Amino acid sequence: MQLSKIYKPIRQDLARVESQLRSVSKVDFPRLAELLSYTLKGGKGIRPALTLLSGKFYHYNPDLLLPMATAVELMHTATLVHDDAIDNSAVRRGRPTINRLWGEDRAVLLGDYLFAKAGEFAAITGNLRVIRLFAQTIQIISSGEISQTFDAFNLEQTRDHYLQRISSKTASLFSLATESGAILSQAPEESIQILREYGYNLGIAFQIVDDILDFVGTEEEMGKPVGSDLAQGTLTLPAMLLLEHYPEGNPVKELFNNCDMPEGDKQKRINQAIELVRHSSIVRECYEVTSDYCTKACRRLELLSDSPSRQALKDLADLVISRRR
Amino acid sequence: MQLSKIYKPIRQDLARVESQLRSVSKVDFPRLAELLSYTLKGGKGIRPALTLLSGKFYHYNPDLLLPMATAVELMHTATLVHDDAIDNSAVRRGRPTINRLWGEDRAVLLGDYLFAKAGEFAAITGNLRVIRLFAQTIQIISSGEISQTFDAFNLEQTRDHYLQRISSKTASLFSLATESGAILSQAPEESIQILREYGYNLGIAFQIVDDILDFVGTEEEMGKPVGSDLAQGTLTLPAMLLLEHYPEGNPVKELFNNCDMPEGDKQKRINQAIELVRHSSIVRECYEVTSDYCTKACRRLELLSDSPSRQALKDLADLVISRRR
Repeated sequence: MQLSKIYKPIRQDLARVESQLRSVSKVDFPRLAELLSYTLKGGKGIRPALTLLSGKFYHYNPDLLLPMATAVELMHTATLVHDDAIDNSAVRRGRPTINRLWGEDRAVLLGDYLFAKAGEFAAITGNLRVIRLFAQTIQIISSGEISQTFDAFNLEQTRDHYLQRISSKTASLFSLATESGAILSQAPEESIQILREYGYNLGIAFQIVDDILDFVGTEEEMGKPVGSDLAQGTLTLPAMLLLEHYPEGNPVKELFNNCDMPEGDKQKRINQAIELVRHSSIVRECYEVTSDYCTKACRRLELLSDSPSRQALKDLADLVISRRR
Repeated sequence: MQLSKIYKPIRQDLARVESQLRSVSKVDFPRLAELLSYTLKGGKGIRPALTLLSGKFYHYNPDLLLPMATAVELMHTATLVHDDAIDNSAVRRGRPTINRLWGEDRAVLLGDYLFAKAGEFAAITGNLRVIRLFAQTIQIISSGEISQTFDAFNLEQTRDHYLQRISSKTASLFSLATESGAILSQAPEESIQILREYGYNLGIAFQIVDDILDFVGTEEEMGKPVGSDLAQGTLTLPAMLLLEHYPEGNPVKELFNNCDMPEGDKQKRINQAIELVRHSSIVRECYEVTSDYCTKACRRLELLSDSPSRQALKDLADLVISRRR
């Protein structure tokens, strides 16, 4: 199933979200317009699609759902711009990052601008519950990332620790997307929780696949170099399993215990780790965990009315497991 | 007149704002708590005071004004944390900066967290006009700062250019503080505009004094090194006047035209510029401009009811001209 097919129930409105995103770069100050237009290209649109699809079960109101879907995508973009600046990443979505092209300082300020613009779109909904949820989600994401900076190159991390990290980093925004869609369509509280949980579990699954692809993907598919998590000292599920499977002479252990080794030696360890993961059962084990989260995501969807949008949410969960980028 | 005397009509509520600010650092994650507690100390409280004082003319409602005053101070703190990270500043309010103590990455993330927490406080007001104004102000500030990065070490800047810059950077937040206070106290539209203009003009005056103090202050008074604007390549009013007064052999010109000169030579030019400004009529001329803006700020206050709060706003304008830190 392709993403474009899944988006069918909301195709027109998703195009309107894209057009709203393009309108964000229409500002008087040409330098800023250029930065905005560059950075707002090339997203897959999963998060705004989740808001729109989640809004389809009760009173679908595009005047509220479109600005919120736009807010969610802008917030996602803001976090990417700041992440890349912090990680000093050179490539994103197959193109040079903002920090690489215009410098880290402008990336920080551009991210601030995008967060605020996202907030302005969220405010259009006029829904205070959604606006507060929006502000709280940014706090969850940034405090999760602060926590991650303290965990860099730390081998003493449990799987719970990992889940907590990706819950803050990714699942919080996925669940904001679905929960806000449900709230804005006047869904009853139980349905709001069903859609929130769907978003949360889908987000966890999505991030685990992202972490798998950092080992088994190609730079072309991912739009960024493979092995970048290890290079940043971030311990993800595949790396954790690698440590469990190979307690002796493990390249991740060597890398993390000597994180100031020369760049060439680092890259050698990263390549070794990638090879080991690729030729082991680790990938399969990680996909099993992913699959569990996708099942969890969809479990309670049955309680919602049968509709093309419900089917789309299920198909999206299937797609997450098989995605290559 | 001392700040503490000016704050008299709102003393108790300002203390409650401070207590709300302290409560922000009470989070479960100890590392984040430490960062928050460190960064939320030592502000002069001018911006929250402006919100509270501006809320005194009609229906003063602490349930709305206290969260907004807190939001304004948090937003201010967020911009300082990001500014220091971007400028690689080492000292702020007489103490090492967050970026110096914990690294630039955490400073960026902490700033994001503070912006979002500020947004959450703004949302407590439940007033959508204020919430949108809040989000728009962050956009004005960050786009103004992006513009500043493109102007660094550029000698071709007019005074209008400078005013536009400090209007985005400082006056926008001052006017948010006063305008939101007026809106939240159900002031009629004309009074909202009077208080907005007061905040705006006071903000311009405040920033010009800041820029003067960067030449004539001491590190002890300012809590940060003198000459830092020139070191960053930022052309402020005193530097502009210096260029006008001394078109030949001007140290600012030399510095800006050779911004990759060795650090020692840079510092020599900065010291020369400081000496020239101190022993010229430039300081007086700058204070005249400041004084004009303070007069402008207070002009229409007469249209508001006579009260201790109105007097406090006038006294604050007087204090801005004479402040040393």
